[in-house]
Amino acid sequence: MINVEIISIGDELLIGQTINTNASWMGVQLAIQGIKVANVVTISDTWDAISHALKVSQERSQVVLITGGLGPTKDDITKQVLCDFFNTKLVLNQDVLEHVESFFIKRNRPMLEVNKMQAMIPEACEVLFNEQGTAPGMWFENSDTIFVSMPGVPYEMKYLFETHVIPRLTNRFPVKKLIQKTYLTQGIGESFLAERLIDWENELRAEGLDLAYLPSPGMVKLRVSSSSGNLNRVAFYGNQLNEMIPTHLYGEEEETLPEVVGKLLLKNGQTIGAVESCTGGNILASLTSVSGSSGYVLGGFVTYSNELKIKLSKVKSETLTNFGAVSEEVVLEMATGGKSELGVDWSISVSGVAGPLGGSEDKPVGTVWIAIDGPIRKISRKFLFGTDRQRTVQMTVLTALNMLRCEILGINIEKKHD
Amino acid sequence: MINVEIISIGDELLIGQTINTNASWMGVQLAIQGIKVANVVTISDTWDAISHALKVSQERSQVVLITGGLGPTKDDITKQVLCDFFNTKLVLNQDVLEHVESFFIKRNRPMLEVNKMQAMIPEACEVLFNEQGTAPGMWFENSDTIFVSMPGVPYEMKYLFETHVIPRLTNRFPVKKLIQKTYLTQGIGESFLAERLIDWENELRAEGLDLAYLPSPGMVKLRVSSSSGNLNRVAFYGNQLNEMIPTHLYGEEEETLPEVVGKLLLKNGQTIGAVESCTGGNILASLTSVSGSSGYVLGGFVTYSNELKIKLSKVKSETLTNFGAVSEEVVLEMATGGKSELGVDWSISVSGVAGPLGGSEDKPVGTVWIAIDGPIRKISRKFLFGTDRQRTVQMTVLTALNMLRCEILGINIEKKHD
Repeated sequence: MINVEIISIGDELLIGQTINTNASWMGVQLAIQGIKVANVVTISDTWDAISHALKVSQERSQVVLITGGLGPTKDDITKQVLCDFFNTKLVLNQDVLEHVESFFIKRNRPMLEVNKMQAMIPEACEVLFNEQGTAPGMWFENSDTIFVSMPGVPYEMKYLFETHVIPRLTNRFPVKKLIQKTYLTQGIGESFLAERLIDWENELRAEGLDLAYLPSPGMVKLRVSSSSGNLNRVAFYGNQLNEMIPTHLYGEEEETLPEVVGKLLLKNGQTIGAVESCTGGNILASLTSVSGSSGYVLGGFVTYSNELKIKLSKVKSETLTNFGAVSEEVVLEMATGGKSELGVDWSISVSGVAGPLGGSEDKPVGTVWIAIDGPIRKISRKFLFGTDRQRTVQMTVLTALNMLRCEILGINIEKKHD
Repeated sequence: MINVEIISIGDELLIGQTINTNASWMGVQLAIQGIKVANVVTISDTWDAISHALKVSQERSQVVLITGGLGPTKDDITKQVLCDFFNTKLVLNQDVLEHVESFFIKRNRPMLEVNKMQAMIPEACEVLFNEQGTAPGMWFENSDTIFVSMPGVPYEMKYLFETHVIPRLTNRFPVKKLIQKTYLTQGIGESFLAERLIDWENELRAEGLDLAYLPSPGMVKLRVSSSSGNLNRVAFYGNQLNEMIPTHLYGEEEETLPEVVGKLLLKNGQTIGAVESCTGGNILASLTSVSGSSGYVLGGFVTYSNELKIKLSKVKSETLTNFGAVSEEVVLEMATGGKSELGVDWSISVSGVAGPLGGSEDKPVGTVWIAIDGPIRKISRKFLFGTDRQRTVQMTVLTALNMLRCEILGINIEKKHD
């Protein structure tokens, strides 16, 4: 077992202005490879703090992953401290300079002196080419320790980590991979799910497999793992979930609901549109977050005002008057109007009270109606999502997409779904 | 200045299953009090790791805040390590026992033997009463260092921190509060901004103030701080930004662009709508993320397909044929069509190549046209946002909202904005 340490550099992390998601992300990636992080150290971007952390980490770790402190502005001093620590000096790296120059040319922006500085690299390191930005990664080896310095910008760090760091580390330190698969569920809370799966969980644990519940709003991920690397047994239990919770289980690993729905629509050659009130565009934004979604998403309406509900999605004025905007009657007319006006095979509509204002006794904040009008039938359901505006929107999007998934697949949603 | 250190205990943090939001939250609370966290150390819940971390922290810190490792399950050993470290033993604390018992009675749940164990407390510590849960906080003093151990459950930790820890610390270490203000900019990269503000930065630094650049896609936050607590001087420099970068500076502290735009629209009594192609609903989602946005957002179109661009936003078929969907001509017609069809005062439209597919030589992936049609005039601008789909959408939303802000305020956007 190798000792891996992460050093996260940045005052913004210490004062809580930025949450250290980089360290978590690297922890996950390394765990997948069977490598466990032993320490994460978050420090200020000062000479003393960085220098001290490097010394301490060298004594106890074989691999030290450093993020942050590599931007072009002058408060970034990591590179200088690294030079001092490795007893080397900054030299101009021609490859990096050309990359930085082409980076600015491509974006049609002038290059500044500070950007040129990014091509000054400690002589003792190996450059890890950063296609996503101007600050390269740097790989140092010193007695028995590997130090890797990466920029703190998440997508640049992730690129370097996946492209350069993981392949090199797994090559250098071959370990038995922990086998794990993640199963994604929607629309059932952690404790209800745990109750539902109790026998299944006991069985898999009795075999020496492990299970973790990872909840987030509207979703619970189930991670089944085998430390002895038995993929077959992990998959065996995973497959059982499909039988047990078909209305909730929507995918595996990194799949997202809009991707799952998109694949089904593409396979069926069907199109989709949406008519959104309280979600204000988030369902359409979610559907179109998928690359290639222009193959099945035609478009939609955001009808925040009642006037636009009438004009665009052809809701009858008297339906609004009789039942109010947040009602089964209105949300069904929205779905049907959207289906014909947008010319789509599937139409999703939502109307609700996102809050925090606007609730009433019979329609409290968090009340949301969702309807779907599809090729065969239309359905509608009511949900209560609580008082947090952002969470209600997020829950509504996920719930609507999972309802759509079940409708496309012909899975009947259970009554007690919410 | 006292040295404060946070020790976060838990394997779930190291493998990325949980993100260390506790440390960020404490960092924010302490910064408000003028206390800066010097280190955050995240470690495994093993005897050696905890014991080692305690020793190291004692040497360098006056205050050590420990979270995690206090739950009822058997893998939590922090309490034993603390006993060893402080050369003391666990004794039954009658007050804690009664609290734990009443906690279970109130919830009508049986109390288990492991729960009784939570009333076993190191003799050398002072108990910090935990109203929110069963694991109390523990306050130790050893030579020159204070150690505070708190449970890792966020709401329990927060209760203990606010109720017991902050009052004791600020009483023991009266400090001058750090004054800091954050200024929010859009549409200019970190290095360009730094170049533009170089004289201003040098001046404020010469006065002993501090400045940090905090970049994220499409935005840079500028944090001006005074360790001597001089709010006037911080505000003095903040005000100058308004003169220097009016097209970029959109707000302060926690404000968001949709909030800023929303306030302006409300003040003017004006309404807004959008016609979105490549952003697929994200501009409308962003505008409606603000509570009360139904007071000025009427709605909008997502027109992913050319047919819907023609049908809904009244783009001429020949404009699409002659110039293509991603063109100044089309995006202007979308804005104007949206303005009249939605009946709004302001209409934003976007059309672009979000990618990763669909680029061409003259319209590479990341090409985005944004137009605004308002009460006085219409404008359009072209941007190149690179190859990452999600980032392009995010950049487009922020850029469009900032263009709108400038138009509402009558600020002329500079030519070289992107």
